[in-house]
Amino acid sequence: MLVSFSPEEIMAIVKPSATRGATTATIRGIASLKSARSGDLSFLGSAKYKADAAASQASILLVPADYAGDPKGEQSLLLVENPSLALSRICARIEQLLWPKPPSGVHPSAFVAETAQVDETATIGPLCVVEADAKIGAGTQVQSGVHIGRGAKIGAQCWLMPGVVVTAECQIGDRVRLQPGVVIGSDGFGYEFVQGRHEKVPQIGNVVLGDDVEIGANSTIDRARIGSTIVGEGTKVDNLVQVAHGVIIGKHCILCAQVGISGSTTIEDYVVLGGQAGVGGHITLGKGTKVGGQTGLSTDTAPGSFVNGTPARPYVLERRLEVLHARLPELFKRMDAVEVGLKKSSSSSPVGQDAAQ
Amino acid sequence: MLVSFSPEEIMAIVKPSATRGATTATIRGIASLKSARSGDLSFLGSAKYKADAAASQASILLVPADYAGDPKGEQSLLLVENPSLALSRICARIEQLLWPKPPSGVHPSAFVAETAQVDETATIGPLCVVEADAKIGAGTQVQSGVHIGRGAKIGAQCWLMPGVVVTAECQIGDRVRLQPGVVIGSDGFGYEFVQGRHEKVPQIGNVVLGDDVEIGANSTIDRARIGSTIVGEGTKVDNLVQVAHGVIIGKHCILCAQVGISGSTTIEDYVVLGGQAGVGGHITLGKGTKVGGQTGLSTDTAPGSFVNGTPARPYVLERRLEVLHARLPELFKRMDAVEVGLKKSSSSSPVGQDAAQ
Amino acid sequence: MLVSFSPEEIMAIVKPSATRGATTATIRGIASLKSARSGDLSFLGSAKYKADAAASQASILLVPADYAGDPKGEQSLLLVENPSLALSRICARIEQLLWPKPPSGVHPSAFVAETAQVDETATIGPLCVVEADAKIGAGTQVQSGVHIGRGAKIGAQCWLMPGVVVTAECQIGDRVRLQPGVVIGSDGFGYEFVQGRHEKVPQIGNVVLGDDVEIGANSTIDRARIGSTIVGEGTKVDNLVQVAHGVIIGKHCILCAQVGISGSTTIEDYVVLGGQAGVGGHITLGKGTKVGGQTGLSTDTAPGSFVNGTPARPYVLERRLEVLHARLPELFKRMDAVEVGLKKSSSSSPVGQDAAQ
Repeated sequence: MLVSFSPEEIMAIVKPSATRGATTATIRGIASLKSARSGDLSFLGSAKYKADAAASQASILLVPADYAGDPKGEQSLLLVENPSLALSRICARIEQLLWPKPPSGVHPSAFVAETAQVDETATIGPLCVVEADAKIGAGTQVQSGVHIGRGAKIGAQCWLMPGVVVTAECQIGDRVRLQPGVVIGSDGFGYEFVQGRHEKVPQIGNVVLGDDVEIGANSTIDRARIGSTIVGEGTKVDNLVQVAHGVIIGKHCILCAQVGISGSTTIEDYVVLGGQAGVGGHITLGKGTKVGGQTGLSTDTAPGSFVNGTPARPYVLERRLEVLHARLPELFKRMDAVEVGLKKSSSSSPVGQDAAQ
Repeated sequence: MLVSFSPEEIMAIVKPSATRGATTATIRGIASLKSARSGDLSFLGSAKYKADAAASQASILLVPADYAGDPKGEQSLLLVENPSLALSRICARIEQLLWPKPPSGVHPSAFVAETAQVDETATIGPLCVVEADAKIGAGTQVQSGVHIGRGAKIGAQCWLMPGVVVTAECQIGDRVRLQPGVVIGSDGFGYEFVQGRHEKVPQIGNVVLGDDVEIGANSTIDRARIGSTIVGEGTKVDNLVQVAHGVIIGKHCILCAQVGISGSTTIEDYVVLGGQAGVGGHITLGKGTKVGGQTGLSTDTAPGSFVNGTPARPYVLERRLEVLHARLPELFKRMDAVEVGLKKSSSSSPVGQDAAQ
Repeated sequence: MLVSFSPEEIMAIVKPSATRGATTATIRGIASLKSARSGDLSFLGSAKYKADAAASQASILLVPADYAGDPKGEQSLLLVENPSLALSRICARIEQLLWPKPPSGVHPSAFVAETAQVDETATIGPLCVVEADAKIGAGTQVQSGVHIGRGAKIGAQCWLMPGVVVTAECQIGDRVRLQPGVVIGSDGFGYEFVQGRHEKVPQIGNVVLGDDVEIGANSTIDRARIGSTIVGEGTKVDNLVQVAHGVIIGKHCILCAQVGISGSTTIEDYVVLGGQAGVGGHITLGKGTKVGGQTGLSTDTAPGSFVNGTPARPYVLERRLEVLHARLPELFKRMDAVEVGLKKSSSSSPVGQDAAQ
């Protein structure tokens, strides 16, 4: 999409510590170093692309403070501490163009129960349902086709994208983003086995999401059997992730796509779970634990652990085992040779000789 | 959420075999042994929490029949065969408060085709679509934003939560629960490779769900190419599970979250599949097979099998292999030592001595 | 479901190279060789079912050109190059009965922005939202509850099933099918870690789907940070698949269910990814690469590779390692025996004898 920023507007956003060169070009797009043309802004995110930066046609280049190069022609270099972060802040402005915030108010096609409380600065889009006693905070945007259940509480400045479902009694903090298709508060998966049948264990708890949480598209977070399933402040969850009932996730964690967490497990602050990792039930992952992609983890981890593999093992050990595993053909050959050598050795041994004598 | 049960109401639900102590407290909440306060009900679900039960402040404690402790102060112990099950039956009542059944009838914003048959005791919520010739049974609740395709049949006392999609011609039994975002009857994934392109194989079969089936949030069950994809009576499926076209699942199975089952596979009754397990196509899992989490299974299993790992192996063998795998560093060291020892032994062998003599 | 085709209609669709026998039966259903009855059509898809074909009661049998059998009674054999493909073409007609194309036009309950351009031959179903500047091509069918974001472009003859979400600025080619619950253009998962918090990296790119792409139910494709996430012409994606931001997928690929692809990875043409496979970020899979189910892949592959396992290895090596892994118990026993043998050998060695003498 086309954008329009003057060099001064860019400077005001990224607040460079220094600049080199000058441009009068209106910034019309954001592009990679290689694909950028005059009128584009680009950035040097990693030192290994320095050559691309030197050759880039971008009108404005965001570069790290220790960057040594010079601008070419009508180019500006803006020196910043973290070019990727600086770019993010420009893009945050562009994002508002992509998804301009709609006017506040309730769309006439939405159904809002009489006892629901919708802040007057909130927006309820077309074809939404807000059930009895639900509460929607200031500035929150509820896009189309969203269902908010009875008694659910949504904080301020949230964004619930199309097709989101938040079931009864769930609580959502401020500045929470729920991507399309997210389900918050589906039933936990619990049954009692009685006379050959699985009898439903009702799930009467709820889900509580802290401030600044983001949940990815079509992810599902189950309500607790009793009490709450909790996702702590600032935790970010990718697409198609499953969080089971009674799970407690701390603050500022990262859950990559397709992760699954079984019931009643505790994930402490700053844990990072790689894509498709599976975490068993009723365990605790210590603060700052890192879990590799596809890992299968069924035991507690100490704070600061880095584990990998199924079953999960310390990362360095797991990598060593992988290497040795790949040497199994060699090991079997060596075993064959040793057995042959030993046989030869013992057939020519003094004992044998004694017998022969 | 706050609830209100008299001790007599609780007794009537759980039908204890005996009681100890007496309370007049109105039960206002359900809580764990440790967090329960006066006015709460709690339960002893596992013998290892006996000390917590003895110290619990709950006004009513559900305990197993062989529990030896005494009530404290104004506390009642209700002795029951299965405290967890007894709790479930109380929670079933609370669940009705969380999600009170709406009045029957069709919401004015729903679109119900003229040729669709909706039982007069069923409820069609706001913003639903019920296409031509579809049939909705007695007492069934269809929440908001649900799509029911042409000719689909939904049984009695079902509950279709927000955003569920049931496509054309699919059949659903009685007392089935479909959590939010479930898709029943998406196209099976089949193509013919013709002249460098994948030509679509139309999927004109359907999906048939038996009575008392439950499907978790955002799970997907594909329609068969011809015939039916079947999920048997009483089978429970967790969130984000994929069931491919032509799969036949028996009765009373358990499929944990993020399981995937490939096409035309048969899962017999009482099979349990752990989270993220993957099952290949065109195989049969014998009755009562248990499959560990993240297992990758591509061969038949005998009834009563318990398999684990990728590729799947009998559980005990897999665990033994895991242990030996972790001892590979030791094995390589032993091999080094053996080779050195053998070299030394053969260099000092009689043959060598002969040569030296 | 019941269908109705005369033998002549079937012949016109499958265009057999030869026929044997003749039937006047109206074809009422499609069934497997074994379950087919008079009035059904069946097909011999694999040589191993020849005996079933010979015994089949079907009125019309689609068989390969080299099939040697004779028709029984009032049966017709239609000789075709690829019976499975011929069946597909019949089923394509039946599919139109299952899902008859609705009349063109915009349903009165849909919200179409004034600046959106909907082709007059397109159909916008009930309860859809089409935002400003979106464009819907000729003959495209948008079913119920679909959200099409601001400026999104949908090509001609597409089919967007219930509950699909296409976010702002995304572009979709011609003849694309999006199964229910698909999310195109959710935010990519990117954050900068700043002062102990994950600061959102706005995702201002889009998603571009080529012609003839199909995406399975509840799959999610993230928009790029800048530029586009791309799925090439003719590529087919199964259910619950995750495609991260900035991924480039070539033409005519197959992504089976629950596959996950991390950010900025390139998948060249004709790649096949087995179910639940996970592909790391910033790598390239060469043309025609085959990846086994549940594989974990984090390095580039050469064109034509076939890899399996976690970590991924060439298929033949991986299978060999699996076999040797299962022989670890034997290897440990052999090691024990060798060590014992060596000890015995060296204790009876001349050196030892010397010492004893």
